[in-house]
Amino acid sequence: MSQKPTQKIRLLLAYDGTDFGGWQKQLEGKPTIQGSLESVFSRLFDEPIQVVGSGRTDAGVHAIGQVAHLKTTKDVSRYQLVRAANALLPPGIVIRRAWAAPDDFHALASATHKTYRYWVHNSPVPSALRGRYLTWIPRPLDLDYLQACLTPIKGEHDFASFQTSGTDSGPTVRHLREASWTRKSSNLLCFSVTSQGFLKQMVRNLVGTMVDLHFAGRPASDMGVILAAQNRQKALGTARPEGLHLCRVYYPRDLDNRCRTL
Amino acid sequence: MSQKPTQKIRLLLAYDGTDFGGWQKQLEGKPTIQGSLESVFSRLFDEPIQVVGSGRTDAGVHAIGQVAHLKTTKDVSRYQLVRAANALLPPGIVIRRAWAAPDDFHALASATHKTYRYWVHNSPVPSALRGRYLTWIPRPLDLDYLQACLTPIKGEHDFASFQTSGTDSGPTVRHLREASWTRKSSNLLCFSVTSQGFLKQMVRNLVGTMVDLHFAGRPASDMGVILAAQNRQKALGTARPEGLHLCRVYYPRDLDNRCRTL
Repeated sequence: MSQKPTQKIRLLLAYDGTDFGGWQKQLEGKPTIQGSLESVFSRLFDEPIQVVGSGRTDAGVHAIGQVAHLKTTKDVSRYQLVRAANALLPPGIVIRRAWAAPDDFHALASATHKTYRYWVHNSPVPSALRGRYLTWIPRPLDLDYLQACLTPIKGEHDFASFQTSGTDSGPTVRHLREASWTRKSSNLLCFSVTSQGFLKQMVRNLVGTMVDLHFAGRPASDMGVILAAQNRQKALGTARPEGLHLCRVYYPRDLDNRCRTL
Repeated sequence: MSQKPTQKIRLLLAYDGTDFGGWQKQLEGKPTIQGSLESVFSRLFDEPIQVVGSGRTDAGVHAIGQVAHLKTTKDVSRYQLVRAANALLPPGIVIRRAWAAPDDFHALASATHKTYRYWVHNSPVPSALRGRYLTWIPRPLDLDYLQACLTPIKGEHDFASFQTSGTDSGPTVRHLREASWTRKSSNLLCFSVTSQGFLKQMVRNLVGTMVDLHFAGRPASDMGVILAAQNRQKALGTARPEGLHLCRVYYPRDLDNRCRTL
């Protein structure tokens, strides 16, 4: 094959994960976000396109700020890229913005940290119109309790207890730069967490454990006991996927500055 | 059949209309809101139950404040009605509240007025997470223009021009007690309208006509010309259903006061 000049494209993506089998392309089962994007961009550029994400999201998890990149040999200035791709993508996947990115931009390797939010609808009655995007917990949750659960886990720790079992071994130390629970309205609670990276299902395992400790009547300080155990068997439930949203992926300012909006 | 004492129940409902064939029960096609409710309450009370709504909503139209009633011969105090019904209803239909209602309460006949809202996502890029509940209009809309369109239609008029053609004839005079366009955020516009009643697809025909006049470069005062024609052929498009939400149905205070929360 002849060596053609290639252009790297950076994408800012939002998706409703409800009807997809997660980010990662798979040969069978539900359509995936990555698979849908590769199919649309391969068609648009009329060449095989690989899409690299900042990381995977599980089936049913949403994103308002996922970042990905792809490479093409085509002259991208000839396309109204965002509009053309959105017209071809299935409902629920949206390209919010696209940039011509420098060669050294890599959606996964260049990412410095990410923010996830986990939304809880805490009401005796489920939500008809937001049920796809919130986890419904009918039993009353105490905000002070949930906030107290965060004290032991903020900062740098080994989060092995909050990694879904069966995951490939690897470093399990992570640094939570920010972790907070806030009440957004009378029956809407939000857990926000920012870190340079997350272990598999770590946010859902953190939320599930906090909620289960709460309903078991155990002290919030037990979060610290579970963390110190470095053993997934000590943690409690995994919260459902629908409340989880990947909100933002951060890159070095230098790289951001060298991206040019398409 | 022996005459058993019956209890009337008033329901406050929310639903995501996307996956339903509208309010009204039908023998074929998609499931409907009324059909789903009758099926669940017939099962719950173990007797045939008819559910009467304050009015129909079209396929794809949502509600956060629909009101309905039903009659049962069962002792309703024996049920945790809201919780039991919500556990049986399909996702997307929620009983927000239920009351034991007086015999003279009738969801349709007693209603004094209703408020609808029509939500427009006015942005070059569609919304991944709110696309089911907003109508996406990529071309920029001017709020002042839309507001000016309302001047001729506020108050009491014959709205025959905004009734979907083919509708059974009947009185077409309606009184718009309130009609407003507001900008809720940088790319979110909301049309709110309150009246004692609406003709078939009237809200969608009003919105569709305002938007089409705008993009055709015609003056906002043409809304008055179209209204005065009393002829559906003069109005323009019918706006898509997904932006339309039935927000509230009003009843006389006296009736409200005689309803008792279950």
